[in-house]
Amino acid sequence: MPHDDAPLLAASVQQPDGTPDRLRRQIEFIIEVDRLKDVFRQSPLLAADRKENDAEHSWHLALMTLVLAEYADEPVDTSKVLALVVLHDLVEIYAGDTFLYDTAAAADQEAREQQAADKLFALLPADQRDHFRSLWDEFEERVTPEARFAKAMDRLQPLLLNYGNRGGTWRTPGVTEQDVLTRKSVIKDASADLWHYAQDLIHTGAANGWVPRADPGA
Amino acid sequence: MPHDDAPLLAASVQQPDGTPDRLRRQIEFIIEVDRLKDVFRQSPLLAADRKENDAEHSWHLALMTLVLAEYADEPVDTSKVLALVVLHDLVEIYAGDTFLYDTAAAADQEAREQQAADKLFALLPADQRDHFRSLWDEFEERVTPEARFAKAMDRLQPLLLNYGNRGGTWRTPGVTEQDVLTRKSVIKDASADLWHYAQDLIHTGAANGWVPRADPGA
Repeated sequence: MPHDDAPLLAASVQQPDGTPDRLRRQIEFIIEVDRLKDVFRQSPLLAADRKENDAEHSWHLALMTLVLAEYADEPVDTSKVLALVVLHDLVEIYAGDTFLYDTAAAADQEAREQQAADKLFALLPADQRDHFRSLWDEFEERVTPEARFAKAMDRLQPLLLNYGNRGGTWRTPGVTEQDVLTRKSVIKDASADLWHYAQDLIHTGAANGWVPRADPGA
Repeated sequence: MPHDDAPLLAASVQQPDGTPDRLRRQIEFIIEVDRLKDVFRQSPLLAADRKENDAEHSWHLALMTLVLAEYADEPVDTSKVLALVVLHDLVEIYAGDTFLYDTAAAADQEAREQQAADKLFALLPADQRDHFRSLWDEFEERVTPEARFAKAMDRLQPLLLNYGNRGGTWRTPGVTEQDVLTRKSVIKDASADLWHYAQDLIHTGAANGWVPRADPGA
């Protein structure tokens, strides 16, 4: 993860002379966010023997939104959900990925991410800076149906990777079936059907021994 | 790239008992497309020393759509463009990535991709199979403003990676400035402003010696 005072990736690319200022700022943002492809998560892929990065994770959520939007309990504007999932992890370029089961890192996560959002979205022209920031705030606050559905996708996707990998990060020492159920329960705020399915995945995983029912070390 | 008769990745994951048939099919599709993260392109990243995969490329196009939609010469439905860019490369899971400057591979590209589309979208329930297939056909045919804009994003993004990398795939033997201009000219069907900018990138790259003005071997 780059330090707060690290130079921008975008600063290493000299734009052609005469690029209009607004477009230059937009392109700098587009260059800077290439870094999301180098922020790695804990979740293992299904298709290859490596961990997933935030950019491909975000793409997977967008694809899932197109397939699963029909399960939303409240009407959702799918285009809004797509924007939210495309943007939701951008702050991790500077704040890093916080592992779902790492309670220590979670303590200052919000402050780190707010600071990162300030820095990243400031690259854009002011109107887009404000628009993107409000979308990211909307995702974080989970007050709208679209934000709740986007968060459900964000929680369901690694569940599928862990289940398909017969454990994955469920095998982290100290993590139990109940911890997984607790962390994933926000899915029920968006979709009763998908929450029912998510619980089936977790219970089946526990029955198969991929996540302990209780912490043997506790 | 998996063989045509290779077993589905989705077949390796046993769904929980009692999963409704429609949801089971949708989840199998979502699992199968994890493979897009393992289809690698020729373009080098800016943020890391490796080539880009199709999933993170598709995410980058979605992000670019959110930032650059204002440059479309015709009104575009952004949510449609987002769906098109999220889906546009899925067929490469079975058909592989065809390098833009590989004219031999381009010869049977369409047949390979049509076959791949038949196979992949058949995983979905029939209504979604038809819907996703029609979106992919729309992208390929480039008749609608949304498809033209999505294609412009698909051409502009690797241009930014090559420019930022001071050459990248422009340095492929035999590729000249004129080849790049020709292959990128579909951008002008979507946006005069972005085509102007794309030409500036290519001309500046040629002036800097990152792509030859003419093929020295020709």
